[in-house]
Amino acid sequence: MEHKNFIGALNWRYATKQFDTAKKVSKKDLNELLESARLSASSFGLQPWKFVVVEDKKTREKLREVGFGQPQITDASHLIVLCSIRDVDGKYIRKYIENIAKIRGISADMLKGFEDTMIGFSKQLGKQAMLEWAKKQTYIALGTLLSACALKKIDASPMEGFNPVEFDKILGLEKLGLASAVLCAVGYRSEKDENAKYKKVRFDMKDIVIKK
Amino acid sequence: MEHKNFIGALNWRYATKQFDTAKKVSKKDLNELLESARLSASSFGLQPWKFVVVEDKKTREKLREVGFGQPQITDASHLIVLCSIRDVDGKYIRKYIENIAKIRGISADMLKGFEDTMIGFSKQLGKQAMLEWAKKQTYIALGTLLSACALKKIDASPMEGFNPVEFDKILGLEKLGLASAVLCAVGYRSEKDENAKYKKVRFDMKDIVIKK
Repeated sequence: MEHKNFIGALNWRYATKQFDTAKKVSKKDLNELLESARLSASSFGLQPWKFVVVEDKKTREKLREVGFGQPQITDASHLIVLCSIRDVDGKYIRKYIENIAKIRGISADMLKGFEDTMIGFSKQLGKQAMLEWAKKQTYIALGTLLSACALKKIDASPMEGFNPVEFDKILGLEKLGLASAVLCAVGYRSEKDENAKYKKVRFDMKDIVIKK
Repeated sequence: MEHKNFIGALNWRYATKQFDTAKKVSKKDLNELLESARLSASSFGLQPWKFVVVEDKKTREKLREVGFGQPQITDASHLIVLCSIRDVDGKYIRKYIENIAKIRGISADMLKGFEDTMIGFSKQLGKQAMLEWAKKQTYIALGTLLSACALKKIDASPMEGFNPVEFDKILGLEKLGLASAVLCAVGYRSEKDENAKYKKVRFDMKDIVIKK
């Protein structure tokens, strides 16, 4: 990833509204973007997410209809639907524990205390609050993904404006135990996108940082 | 920011548990970290966050007591408390609109439609759901901040394990209209931190990416 200056990259990026429909993100680049999301931090390291990459034209047309008609959904190179695990329960936590044991070459029994802590946390929050928690973790992955896009000079449009119930239906997510949390269209800006010319708007540092 | 390879940087980072208490993040580096968070994406560009940087030793000792005693709270160079705006209401939205108008040199009246959309969104969700929404946006900023840390080879420990009610009291956040959302301690790892040696655990790409 060539962009040495991260602040410069973040200033370069903007929420792209019009994509160049002729330009595709290469397979190699797409894999790097997904790899950055995969490596994101999450609470307990639980990674309560999956990433659905939609390229199929017809599917994207259907999604656009329940996504406030936003053209980025169909026109970007790829649409990434960042999904959260609906039920981070004992079974899911067990899968994670086994993954740790395998990667670190230790016995899952050695992780019993950690497993119990996570199970207790999940039970205490309850299913609905756990899904909200999972979505927050998924937003960390979004932040990492947008950072990767900016560093690679790949344009992106993060979107919350869509009907998640309909998205879940069209993509068959519920039966996979997933809930669509937030979208990120990736690709390359159209030369016609006026939004690229607007000055970035952020509150001043002095208004958002408090030192104690 | 020197680390050219973002994937490499993400693989380098880990949730640091033991910080070197003698090593401080320079003022220049800290500003760059905060600048990355400031430049983060958010829905509507509303930036419903503020960042409280705690350096004071006594304050951090108090916070640690209501933060499950986690040593990162006191031992890292700086503790950043990422806070969300408690009430993204018409008044807050107006401030944002005026900020856009000022930066882009246009009249706030030209943004009336955009302002009304945001006010409608806020009213429809209601105060409690809006705070949850604001926290999600704050997690994007966390993702950006962790990316910046990794690129700068500054260690970080994101933490959800703390009592937010007590944090808000100690830091006087409620009267500022803020709610503590998530913590990020930044600094440099201690040579004694065994966690640095563990292999990173992530699910395989094939298990978390679905192509459509």
